[in-house]
Amino acid sequence: MTKQFPQNPPSDTQKLGEFELIRDIFMKRAEQMMRAKPQHAPLLSIGDDGAVVACHPNEELVITTDMLVADRHFFVDTDPYLVGKKSLAVNLSDLAAMGAKPTGFTLALALPKQKQAWLHGFANGLFDLADLFDCHLIGGDTCQGPLTISITAFGVVPNGQAIKRSGAQVGDSIWVSGALGDARLALGCIRKEWSLDLGAEELNQINQRLHSPLPRVALGIALREIATAALDVSDGLLGDLRHILEASHVSAKINLDALPRSTVLRRQDQAIQYQCVASGGDDYELCFTANPDQHDTITSLSKELGLPLTCIGQIIEAQDESLLILEDGDGIPLSLEKSQALLRSFDHFRD
Amino acid sequence: MTKQFPQNPPSDTQKLGEFELIRDIFMKRAEQMMRAKPQHAPLLSIGDDGAVVACHPNEELVITTDMLVADRHFFVDTDPYLVGKKSLAVNLSDLAAMGAKPTGFTLALALPKQKQAWLHGFANGLFDLADLFDCHLIGGDTCQGPLTISITAFGVVPNGQAIKRSGAQVGDSIWVSGALGDARLALGCIRKEWSLDLGAEELNQINQRLHSPLPRVALGIALREIATAALDVSDGLLGDLRHILEASHVSAKINLDALPRSTVLRRQDQAIQYQCVASGGDDYELCFTANPDQHDTITSLSKELGLPLTCIGQIIEAQDESLLILEDGDGIPLSLEKSQALLRSFDHFRD
Repeated sequence: MTKQFPQNPPSDTQKLGEFELIRDIFMKRAEQMMRAKPQHAPLLSIGDDGAVVACHPNEELVITTDMLVADRHFFVDTDPYLVGKKSLAVNLSDLAAMGAKPTGFTLALALPKQKQAWLHGFANGLFDLADLFDCHLIGGDTCQGPLTISITAFGVVPNGQAIKRSGAQVGDSIWVSGALGDARLALGCIRKEWSLDLGAEELNQINQRLHSPLPRVALGIALREIATAALDVSDGLLGDLRHILEASHVSAKINLDALPRSTVLRRQDQAIQYQCVASGGDDYELCFTANPDQHDTITSLSKELGLPLTCIGQIIEAQDESLLILEDGDGIPLSLEKSQALLRSFDHFRD
Repeated sequence: MTKQFPQNPPSDTQKLGEFELIRDIFMKRAEQMMRAKPQHAPLLSIGDDGAVVACHPNEELVITTDMLVADRHFFVDTDPYLVGKKSLAVNLSDLAAMGAKPTGFTLALALPKQKQAWLHGFANGLFDLADLFDCHLIGGDTCQGPLTISITAFGVVPNGQAIKRSGAQVGDSIWVSGALGDARLALGCIRKEWSLDLGAEELNQINQRLHSPLPRVALGIALREIATAALDVSDGLLGDLRHILEASHVSAKINLDALPRSTVLRRQDQAIQYQCVASGGDDYELCFTANPDQHDTITSLSKELGLPLTCIGQIIEAQDESLLILEDGDGIPLSLEKSQALLRSFDHFRD
């Protein structure tokens, strides 16, 4: 744990804050969960300078890290329960994209001031999601500072079975799970970008997609045997897909009208639909490629998981002019201007 | 990677920032180091949603995480090279305390705005230290936000050899490495808490202890065979030592005059000396316990490493009234008031 500069000399009457705070809220919950699910606990020890984790000789470890900053990745007045859930969900989504089964995570948390109520809500959301996926909190650090959450999550895959971005082959079909764009639509509504006529139930539905994404863990595990490449859709489908294309040295043809979207999104103007579904982001669905002969297997998997899996295009040979060729449902290429607008994935440093 | 809310619509002329920034500065350095030291690389793959790490069946993994917030853990105008070095050093110090050999780390970084120069300096410091300990950057996340650095570091120990806090036995000697208190003295000077008469060379020496701590990795590895318990001194010796005592259900008698300190610190008032050495913090030395029959082995180890190792007290049976009994060099117990003042370790949420 790092030393923090003392701002004021402490007085006798002030009680120990951080250690008790962490122990009371996080460690207790972590220990409860370990006792309840010892068979899933990767931990040999907790409460030291580091956690000790056992390695299985037939497994590789997958490690991912994400940072969430208040008012950039979530609104500061968002229900802390949802912030807690989402903080872990975005990391488990990365693990799912690699085909890894989540096992544990560390949490580093900067808080503006002692906010017991916020911490309890945050911890409840965090542990409810952790519990759902048998993923154990194995260590952490808490300090005072602008509200920032950094989670590093660990998962396991059988040796050699992690799904990479680099395996896409010419002729592969491109698939995406669930529906895209609702989170972006919800953000647009909150920020009053668009004047939309949405009912309370519709708003609730899209807000849930923004605030409470569910990582596609079971899908990711099943895809180990099926997918040639995969990633999670967090920054917008087309921008994220570029990473597969670059890593695999191929291009792609995408049918924009095939991109799966909710009934709520389908009711909006086509421009808004395209923007939300193609480059909206915050979807936390999986995008993957697979040989066309896997079509029936994928259709069965979709039914088994109760999760739509939609074929949205095809991997083609690397094109000189463009990684991505966008077409409408009739196979007519989009204008260069429209394509360019959609191909700009939002970048964290650009504004 | 998490989606960030777009603040302004991007324009055509803005180039991709984050991905190139990270790739240019961090990924290139990480890949260079992997090529230069393939034998030390824990990595099977990088550049996907997560990193894939091989596990060795005879080893356990030790994982630790630390968050550093600007103007709380370091001054915002500190040379970014030193911030980069220290960010990793504090994590490797935790690994050292467990007897683990560092192998890799992830980095999550929030930056106030695009600061190329800062990033380069930071990366240089980070990688210089990483290189020194063959510790590879295996993944990360970068976003815009108040300057915050969160590192999760990984190390390995042979199965069952991680040093815990819970192993201290009655009769064990208590040891500490190096010298304590210089970092706190430097902080006091910077903040003008005390009016001290220090020469430029003396100031330089104590500032180096504050800004450029060196994790005791070789010592930690050697202690696997010697220590019954260990931790790193980051929040002040006496406060940190309490964690060993609580975990081991014992108490300790400490000779305050034996606490190792530099010539610079020895020149100050006794009150300042005691405060800096006993509860100053930011020392990143190791405190450990060992059976008295290890005395000669520890003395030899000290010579071998060129690092002072000082016996500062003894583990005694758990006392009802106090975990720690503080004495001066003549074995005379400190007054209750003086003891209490020293026993208050700084707490991150107390101010």
